Amino acid sequence: MSEIITAAILAIGDELLSGRTKDKNIGYLANFLTLKGIDLKEARIVSDDEDAIVKAVNELRSEYDYVFTSGGIGPTHDDITADAIAKAFGVGIHHDPRAMAILEPHYAARGMEFTDARKRMARLPIGSELIDNPVSKAPGFQIGNVYVMAGVPAIFQAMVDALAPGLKSGVKLLSKAIDCPFGEGTIGDGLASIQKAHPETAIGSYPRFDGKTYSTQILVRSRDEDAANAAIKAIAELFEELKS
Amino acid sequence: MSEIITAAILAIGDELLSGRTKDKNIGYLANFLTLKGIDLKEARIVSDDEDAIVKAVNELRSEYDYVFTSGGIGPTHDDITADAIAKAFGVGIHHDPRAMAILEPHYAARGMEFTDARKRMARLPIGSELIDNPVSKAPGFQIGNVYVMAGVPAIFQAMVDALAPGLKSGVKLLSKAIDCPFGEGTIGDGLASIQKAHPETAIGSYPRFDGKTYSTQILVRSRDEDAANAAIKAIAELFEELKS
Repeated sequence: MSEIITAAILAIGDELLSGRTKDKNIGYLANFLTLKGIDLKEARIVSDDEDAIVKAVNELRSEYDYVFTSGGIGPTHDDITADAIAKAFGVGIHHDPRAMAILEPHYAARGMEFTDARKRMARLPIGSELIDNPVSKAPGFQIGNVYVMAGVPAIFQAMVDALAPGLKSGVKLLSKAIDCPFGEGTIGDGLASIQKAHPETAIGSYPRFDGKTYSTQILVRSRDEDAANAAIKAIAELFEELKS
Repeated sequence: MSEIITAAILAIGDELLSGRTKDKNIGYLANFLTLKGIDLKEARIVSDDEDAIVKAVNELRSEYDYVFTSGGIGPTHDDITADAIAKAFGVGIHHDPRAMAILEPHYAARGMEFTDARKRMARLPIGSELIDNPVSKAPGFQIGNVYVMAGVPAIFQAMVDALAPGLKSGVKLLSKAIDCPFGEGTIGDGLASIQKAHPETAIGSYPRFDGKTYSTQILVRSRDEDAANAAIKAIAELFEELKS
């Protein structure tokens, strides 16, 4: 099976764009999807603005196999992701009975009032499936190819783990790293020729600077192991040539 | 002056979407622009793919006052940002004489060959202005409302500092944080009413969980100090009510 499966992530929240909070969910999901064999093709961050969320969700869900969102599903007035997703899909929104059945006994057992604010966390677009939240109970949800999760990293990660078994997996991208003692300016010409001769690989070059000297980490990625090995061999030969 | 100035950032690089590297430039720029009074409205991350870069740059530059990019301006074959920007603007690309005049003596003084790879760092879209790079010399560039910078955080930050004096500043958003001893579910209903009564403020609510109890940080933001203070007073009254 050589199917390529693509994804995007949309992180939602004013605090990510004001600098107050540094996003951690994009990097986490990037690692997770790479291990799963799904290509993360794009990430976006938008503010808690309904029009911005609707536009981004509709663009991304038409372009990629999966869209994952983080943020904006809590109990307060600035948590507007569920409404925006319902609008993007052109469906209604309601207090989902399955979500109410999780939250009501959860608060009752703690002697806490089930306020309108807390009920807000059970408002889901009609037609959604729930995503389990083992940390704080209030569920995420999935509608179409869009998976909507909390912004708090511990909850986001638990939700990603919960939905993982249901995702299609693609052929994993093999990735091999090679440490190179030369700077990019020294290897760049040779590396460009090697990339041209090995089109089934993607050769990435990442500069390192220890404060005194430049070196490079080279990453060869491919879905074909033989192609990756052939490119790696050519790179090793380039190094020998430059050393002599 | 009540002009609102908007911006977007586009971070470019396969390594950011594979999880190999965690982006640091979005958070840095978010802080910088907030202090400058410029609203960062959107962030995107795309891979080293010309079509993806061209599409994102053209969408963002038509929508926002400023676009800042990071990544893809080094010496290797996978550094394709300059070509993509030239294509997005429909202009040619050349070895910019000003950039060549910076790089040539830089390598000569170090006894290093001025390879084609290194010359690649002087290839800029025709009509660009240079952005100073005090760290490693190879310049960033500005064309139209797009500012193109390196991905290495230390160099990105130095370039942002270099271009800062030329940017228009907006009216700064005042931001006041209030620590709240209650969880979001407790304050949510009251806070929603306060937001409704104070439309000239944006009231954000950020849950905290120390492993045992929930509390909340509330952020009141406004361009009008009186409006911010009125909302803060209403929030303090809500706390007193809940405590009694």
